[in-house]
Amino acid sequence: MAPLRSWFPIPPASHFSLANIPFGIISTTANPKPRLGVPIGDHVLDLALFTANNGFARQSTIQPHQHVFSELTLNSFAALGRPVHSVVRKYIQDVFLENTSYPEILKDNAALQKEALVPLKEVTNHLPLEIGDYTDFFVGRNHAYNCGILFRGPENPIAPNYDHLPVGYHGRASSVVVSGTPIRRPFGQIEAEKNNPIQSPCLRLDFEMEMGAFVCKANKMGEPILIDEAEDAIFGLVMMNDWSARDIQFWESTPLGPFNSKNFGTSVSPWVVLIDALEPFAAKGLPNAQQTLPYMQQKNEKNQYDIKLKVDLTSQSGQTATVCKVSATELLFSFPQMVAHHTIGGCPMRVGDLLGSGTISGNEPGSCGCFLESTQGGKVGITLSGGEKRMFLEDGDTVTFSGVCGTEDGGLVGFGECSGTILPALKL
Amino acid sequence: MAPLRSWFPIPPASHFSLANIPFGIISTTANPKPRLGVPIGDHVLDLALFTANNGFARQSTIQPHQHVFSELTLNSFAALGRPVHSVVRKYIQDVFLENTSYPEILKDNAALQKEALVPLKEVTNHLPLEIGDYTDFFVGRNHAYNCGILFRGPENPIAPNYDHLPVGYHGRASSVVVSGTPIRRPFGQIEAEKNNPIQSPCLRLDFEMEMGAFVCKANKMGEPILIDEAEDAIFGLVMMNDWSARDIQFWESTPLGPFNSKNFGTSVSPWVVLIDALEPFAAKGLPNAQQTLPYMQQKNEKNQYDIKLKVDLTSQSGQTATVCKVSATELLFSFPQMVAHHTIGGCPMRVGDLLGSGTISGNEPGSCGCFLESTQGGKVGITLSGGEKRMFLEDGDTVTFSGVCGTEDGGLVGFGECSGTILPALKL
Repeated sequence: MAPLRSWFPIPPASHFSLANIPFGIISTTANPKPRLGVPIGDHVLDLALFTANNGFARQSTIQPHQHVFSELTLNSFAALGRPVHSVVRKYIQDVFLENTSYPEILKDNAALQKEALVPLKEVTNHLPLEIGDYTDFFVGRNHAYNCGILFRGPENPIAPNYDHLPVGYHGRASSVVVSGTPIRRPFGQIEAEKNNPIQSPCLRLDFEMEMGAFVCKANKMGEPILIDEAEDAIFGLVMMNDWSARDIQFWESTPLGPFNSKNFGTSVSPWVVLIDALEPFAAKGLPNAQQTLPYMQQKNEKNQYDIKLKVDLTSQSGQTATVCKVSATELLFSFPQMVAHHTIGGCPMRVGDLLGSGTISGNEPGSCGCFLESTQGGKVGITLSGGEKRMFLEDGDTVTFSGVCGTEDGGLVGFGECSGTILPALKL
Repeated sequence: MAPLRSWFPIPPASHFSLANIPFGIISTTANPKPRLGVPIGDHVLDLALFTANNGFARQSTIQPHQHVFSELTLNSFAALGRPVHSVVRKYIQDVFLENTSYPEILKDNAALQKEALVPLKEVTNHLPLEIGDYTDFFVGRNHAYNCGILFRGPENPIAPNYDHLPVGYHGRASSVVVSGTPIRRPFGQIEAEKNNPIQSPCLRLDFEMEMGAFVCKANKMGEPILIDEAEDAIFGLVMMNDWSARDIQFWESTPLGPFNSKNFGTSVSPWVVLIDALEPFAAKGLPNAQQTLPYMQQKNEKNQYDIKLKVDLTSQSGQTATVCKVSATELLFSFPQMVAHHTIGGCPMRVGDLLGSGTISGNEPGSCGCFLESTQGGKVGITLSGGEKRMFLEDGDTVTFSGVCGTEDGGLVGFGECSGTILPALKL
């Protein structure tokens, strides 16, 4: 596929080609009020300014809804629904096309270009949506298998329910933060000797490479979102780091699941990539040996996306390592299936709710989405560029995810980065 | 203790004596806009009207904050902090005292009495606070023990972590509703034969008698609320019915805990009873055989409240039974201890967050806070007044909690009711 050519310079290696058009919340030194922005190459289109300067003058569908572009979060834009997201994305693409239908809007409007196109590096990102509830699933089957061997033993690593439903748990919405926010090493209870806990900083701090999906459709309590409607319930995807305190998790999780081991911070990438932008990269996920029950049967078999994910670690002293490379297809259930399952009992979704996929791991060496797996529970160290070793994360370590679809030839559809640096634990 | 006597008629059996002064969100047919109200006997003081008519003229501390009484939820009032809640409660008490210091405010103001004192039965209640996150703990040790025998076997009913930390899980904020909201029987996956699920309406629908606490203090991510500050983080208490689908729960909960079995509805009583009102009923909770770690050591040993709780069931045909009587002292950890534990790793609390105690059960017959325990997992039926039997809830059943402290002599401090009626499952 030839890339969409633009009058505006877009570096070929940019995650933000015209094929992408993701949405985020930005502020700048000049204007600290958060508002919507769309990254294009190395710049961000300030949608509040673009709107205020009649940027949407040639798109009548959008005009009644223009106020959403000046809001503090993407929630109102998301609530407009996928057909409107499509129209907005296509219009912005057209405005930037070499042969744009609307040259007067931006191509021939140097004053607005100067004002509304802000260098990406001058922009501060904010959490893209206000999250009502956050649910973390566990549908990376290779991860579940590898963890199952560590926690449940090699005879029976996968629980009997696993292939029948997307296993998940309710997470903590208040602790979801945007990429770049530092993460403090949590304090908590860890088992010093068997059944004998102490209060201590976490000694086995880990990352988890996940994809997150934001919900754009609400349902009333008691009324499920059926599988055929569930695709329209997904606004778009982000990368997500579900930071995990393994020693706290190991001690606290019986019988109700992880709690403080997860609620000290979850990072998401700043730009929400719309499902429309991902459709060309749709692919089959992991095969399921079980017949899925009717309420989760999705017509479209290509219900995952071939997003090439990568995790890099940089130590405080600047040593580096790429610690994971994996495709986002390594998942057993899709986000629409998660929505159908989550709501089948009547649980209400709200616009802005966040769903996490669970850790994504492959089967090959170097494809594990967390240290717990790649170090085999802290047994096999990972060596950084200068010889430092890691079993788990040290203070000052920065973990950076990147994710991208497609090729430079066709124009990349990428997620940018999701990063966080570990701060030392407080002294309590 | 002699009751506080009022110039306004307050029936002695009312949960809303002058010793109480709880807060809720009300609307009426005449004024459908939600706003704050305080029940007094059989009436509710409309705080928006009271404020608009200079009701707080004699209380200068409150005046700068008066706008909070016209808001749609209690969040802004809660955020003012416990010292302000105390001032407001005492002032309203004084306004209603027989020998009020401010007779001109209401006692001698028949016009305002007529306008601002609405009969309780004419009032519609709304969810008292907007809930950011909802966490459900499991600190009713008798309940944990009884369930442990059913799920883990009689040798080892209590997990090793149980006495060391308040075990809990993140719940679903979107599904918390106010008393009176109907609860639809959830559809979901249940195990028809071993490891072989079907999609079906829940066949083992249960209630859970809990207390809930609303948080009135926020902390930044990474900065815990220490135990000495945690008492000031609790705004007040409500009764809470954590409706539970036991068959869905049994199948889905390995390894990450309950999910769809809990997120189809959680009911709370409408009036938030302030901690100040409960202090006279402070009592010791269950003894803990383990030494609590320093970060959870609370100076005050009387950290529970002797609230007499009762659960009544009424079938569609009008048959009734009292299915539980228990004191809220049957808990192992206090709400301040839950806050200290919840935030020790840095998890941020927001004003309006809801904490559930977990099911409260005693040791005697008739004191179990759910059917799972009282019917021994569906083995021993409970007989209603007309001979109907229950193992679990049937369609049309109404479950009503009530809870009250003190005696009529001293003036009751009660929670009113928390009720819900089971609607039949949807046909899918």
